[in-house]
Amino acid sequence: MPLVGIGDDCAVIPADHGMAWLVTTDALVEGIHFLKEQISAKDLGYKTIAVSVSDVAAMGGEPKYAFLSIALPKTIEAAWASDLIFGIKEACEKWDLLLLGGDTVGSLRDLFLNVTLIGSAKEERIVYRHGARVGDLICASGTLGDSGGGLKMLQEKIPVSRENAKLIRAHFHPEPSPKQGIWLASQQGVHAMMDISDGLDCDLQRLLRCSHTGALIEIDRFPLSSSLIRICAEQGWDPIELALTGGEDYCLLLSVDPKHAALIQSSFQELFGSPLHVIGSVTAPPSSIVYLKQGKAIEIKCKHFDHFQE
Amino acid sequence: MPLVGIGDDCAVIPADHGMAWLVTTDALVEGIHFLKEQISAKDLGYKTIAVSVSDVAAMGGEPKYAFLSIALPKTIEAAWASDLIFGIKEACEKWDLLLLGGDTVGSLRDLFLNVTLIGSAKEERIVYRHGARVGDLICASGTLGDSGGGLKMLQEKIPVSRENAKLIRAHFHPEPSPKQGIWLASQQGVHAMMDISDGLDCDLQRLLRCSHTGALIEIDRFPLSSSLIRICAEQGWDPIELALTGGEDYCLLLSVDPKHAALIQSSFQELFGSPLHVIGSVTAPPSSIVYLKQGKAIEIKCKHFDHFQE
Repeated sequence: MPLVGIGDDCAVIPADHGMAWLVTTDALVEGIHFLKEQISAKDLGYKTIAVSVSDVAAMGGEPKYAFLSIALPKTIEAAWASDLIFGIKEACEKWDLLLLGGDTVGSLRDLFLNVTLIGSAKEERIVYRHGARVGDLICASGTLGDSGGGLKMLQEKIPVSRENAKLIRAHFHPEPSPKQGIWLASQQGVHAMMDISDGLDCDLQRLLRCSHTGALIEIDRFPLSSSLIRICAEQGWDPIELALTGGEDYCLLLSVDPKHAALIQSSFQELFGSPLHVIGSVTAPPSSIVYLKQGKAIEIKCKHFDHFQE
Repeated sequence: MPLVGIGDDCAVIPADHGMAWLVTTDALVEGIHFLKEQISAKDLGYKTIAVSVSDVAAMGGEPKYAFLSIALPKTIEAAWASDLIFGIKEACEKWDLLLLGGDTVGSLRDLFLNVTLIGSAKEERIVYRHGARVGDLICASGTLGDSGGGLKMLQEKIPVSRENAKLIRAHFHPEPSPKQGIWLASQQGVHAMMDISDGLDCDLQRLLRCSHTGALIEIDRFPLSSSLIRICAEQGWDPIELALTGGEDYCLLLSVDPKHAALIQSSFQELFGSPLHVIGSVTAPPSSIVYLKQGKAIEIKCKHFDHFQE
């Protein structure tokens, strides 16, 4: 097996006995990825680990070892730092990860976190972004836009209620599932997989570019939570825009052979108690997405998150 | 072999066929570890990789794969960023490293860099910090204080000349040697090893604590470069203080069985064209250092670098 570097959710390093290591690195920077005034230290610690767990899950791997760097400004209080560690520990325990190393350093002004996660997988079971085939069905393993809705609630200072708390939780406490990733990667007919971290529109385009295919996406089939639908109705927000560009869903995006899709869907529902949603199909090149609404192609202009723009 | 986590230069993850992975993570933060006005982008890129290469070398490993996160403020110019990448590439080529992944993100104000390096070693050849035995000789594989002298030159704005340029270079362009680390780790009688990154005083104390031993250090035997001796005489600086606390020497600190030391020293000189310097010996607990000058114990009060202090 060749070594795989930059361009997928993880790098793949071949090991012995048909195994491989999956390695991913994610940086989280104050003021760019999070606001310290918005997120609790505990949630931040948890989320720092969760985003990398999602990358390993997205290729069908089991996360195993974590390495964490923290650059802390002097203004950080001891109690806050200890809550951060608590959240990191919570995440490590949840996914049975060993925190094997790291670097704790000072920072002049901003808080900076970096996690490197090493997972393992059977070489032949790893699923990449580049395997989608024309005719495949495109599926999502969870609802779309909840985290984006939660972020919008924070930005617009919407009070948290019993009905919308789920969105805030989706934003602060993502639940990537290596179990689902490993199981899906082991199924015949799963041709390509990645996680949705920057929003369906952006991430699907990446998958299509890697696979040299296009896609037809039916927005009427988007899995939207009742919490998201309700708050969008109340606030006049567009749930489709949130589903496409909200990002940080940390569920799986798959390209599945239509011959195997029904069985995979029913087994997935049985095993995990939640549906695998078909949202479109893979088409011939070019690597662009045609969005359909009630059977008609519509133009969607997405504004993607850009780290280097305000 | 057990999994080894936090507390040595690298974490050790057992692999098959008697091999193991060595993993280390280092964060470099603007204003704490470097000043953008002082270091060139190319040197910064090079040094970011070099400090982690030093950790892998310090346990007898061969560095193999690098993962790099960069958080860039918007104020960074494209040419500067491209020089940074150039320096990273230079270091990766020098040590035959593959840059397999990373995360490039924005930052509000400060520049952050984080590198995770994965190396490999034969399990039985890995040398830890904890193996020093009473009676061992303590050795250093390079001169001490040059990098600290270079930093002091920058801080005190001393003009660079032919005589002192070596110190600036030692500070910006460290030359850790995995070849020396691998060779030393393979020698019978090398009981403990680590790199000198925070200064001899601080790092030797770490080694002694891990080994539950003390040490007698003869400061007259410190390997000091002629450049350092000259500038210290000119400027009235104390070369011993720089050797003890300057830090960033990125050479190796070893504890060697006296029965094998002479052979190791002569072979080292022959193989690498530079001496392995004996600077003291390992003594019974407690884990403290007694410094001798012309045979008499002297008290040395060291100020260590603290990331959380100004």
